[in-house]
Amino acid sequence: MPHRIDRDTRLCISLSGRPSNIGTRFHNHLYEALALNYVYKAFTTDDLPGAIAGIRALGIRGCGVSMPFKEACIPFLDDLDPSAAGLQSVNTIVNDTAADGRSLLRGYNTDYLAVRTLLDRHDVSPGLPFALRGSGGMARAVLCALRDSGFTNGTLIARNEATGRRLADEYSLPWQPDTTGLADGSLLVNVTPLGMAGGPDVDTLAFEPALIATAAQVFDVVAMPAETPLIRAARESGKPVITGAEVIALQALEQFVLYTGIRPTDEQAAAAAAYSRA
Amino acid sequence: MPHRIDRDTRLCISLSGRPSNIGTRFHNHLYEALALNYVYKAFTTDDLPGAIAGIRALGIRGCGVSMPFKEACIPFLDDLDPSAAGLQSVNTIVNDTAADGRSLLRGYNTDYLAVRTLLDRHDVSPGLPFALRGSGGMARAVLCALRDSGFTNGTLIARNEATGRRLADEYSLPWQPDTTGLADGSLLVNVTPLGMAGGPDVDTLAFEPALIATAAQVFDVVAMPAETPLIRAARESGKPVITGAEVIALQALEQFVLYTGIRPTDEQAAAAAAYSRA
Repeated sequence: MPHRIDRDTRLCISLSGRPSNIGTRFHNHLYEALALNYVYKAFTTDDLPGAIAGIRALGIRGCGVSMPFKEACIPFLDDLDPSAAGLQSVNTIVNDTAADGRSLLRGYNTDYLAVRTLLDRHDVSPGLPFALRGSGGMARAVLCALRDSGFTNGTLIARNEATGRRLADEYSLPWQPDTTGLADGSLLVNVTPLGMAGGPDVDTLAFEPALIATAAQVFDVVAMPAETPLIRAARESGKPVITGAEVIALQALEQFVLYTGIRPTDEQAAAAAAYSRA
Repeated sequence: MPHRIDRDTRLCISLSGRPSNIGTRFHNHLYEALALNYVYKAFTTDDLPGAIAGIRALGIRGCGVSMPFKEACIPFLDDLDPSAAGLQSVNTIVNDTAADGRSLLRGYNTDYLAVRTLLDRHDVSPGLPFALRGSGGMARAVLCALRDSGFTNGTLIARNEATGRRLADEYSLPWQPDTTGLADGSLLVNVTPLGMAGGPDVDTLAFEPALIATAAQVFDVVAMPAETPLIRAARESGKPVITGAEVIALQALEQFVLYTGIRPTDEQAAAAAAYSRA
């Protein structure tokens, strides 16, 4: 409760074009569960340099970064973690104090870290062919994680030829506009809003049922609902899945660890993730 | 509790060289009592322009300002309320959004406003001679309030001749280094740290017992302890008093009203003030 807040309380924030409550609920739930003297609050801004000056000047401990600031914030930081440097996309800023007292801002990408961890945790073999659908910023983070985890045999699917070809070229993959001709036994990865709650395509399957039936594994980055049409169909076909709920919870958990230096138990993290989505 | 915090929660902060917990406890107590979606957090900074840029860029609703920032912040504001303009000293910044979406920062001085209100509420006659002891920033705020409330017949007492003479000249008052020769029936005003808890002069009376015995009224700006040696002596002599606890509670209350647009009841304000000092 606010009564708990005192002069020593550390503030963590987020900056995004349209703040949600998910991060706020996730982090504050864990602060309370672990009795940490932190508080989290989501912000938007129309002055990114001013907001980052404020992070430094007020000693704000950390900042989650969402669209449209993930690339734009980079010139204002001091340093990039490898998770963000390869992508040139930051979703987490950590504010440390240098030996001389100066603020030192380091950018991370915990989306990338979460995807790599999940590929490993779910024992997805890098030898699998993969088909990734999407061409936005998160598609790029997932592609980068796949490549760095050893996946080489992939196809990029994107309806938008311009962004699709550009991203495919960056990762030396073939591009195609639809899902025709994909190999059996693939890892299917959806990084589009297809199936997303509240969106226009909430009931749309990102991959056809026949493809799901022959897939090796299915990965949907869409986090809401917890069970998207794609995940439901994959489960009904008995396919192992990685869900967007796992990605969002794990990336938030990694932010939490970066900000506080403390790693919650799996049970604590799961409770906070459930609370954040309630 | 932090769970209550969401994307719509408004943040108010304070900036001071050495943050205390008093404002944090006062404001958060009232937010909770009145079920307002606000949260308050104290900060220090070594980059005042950056901190104020952050207030604008993050849409922080209000900011309490303490030493050493009360004058230094003025060049970074858009506008001064008369309470701050006369003094050229700001203890409260209110962040409004202009019609074009820009942040509009206006500086107030609620110490000045609180002193004026208390002089009025305690029916202190402006015809009284007064003796004010002190020559710092708060002494200046109290002098300005006395003058603007119609008090003209005063003496400034300050051990430091340089700062004492300068402040006395500014308000066209005589200066003297000690309390000799003060008129009977005066309003005695202490704006020094004499009698302050935790200070070197915790047991020192700001005015001699004989002066207190002949005073009309006694005003001690020292807020901790709630009953300073001067206030205790004045009460024992049956003199009406104004306490520093009243000043600090009322100035914080006026900040609260400026930030939220809501005026708590006297009972709510008293409960928050008591909590803030506990």
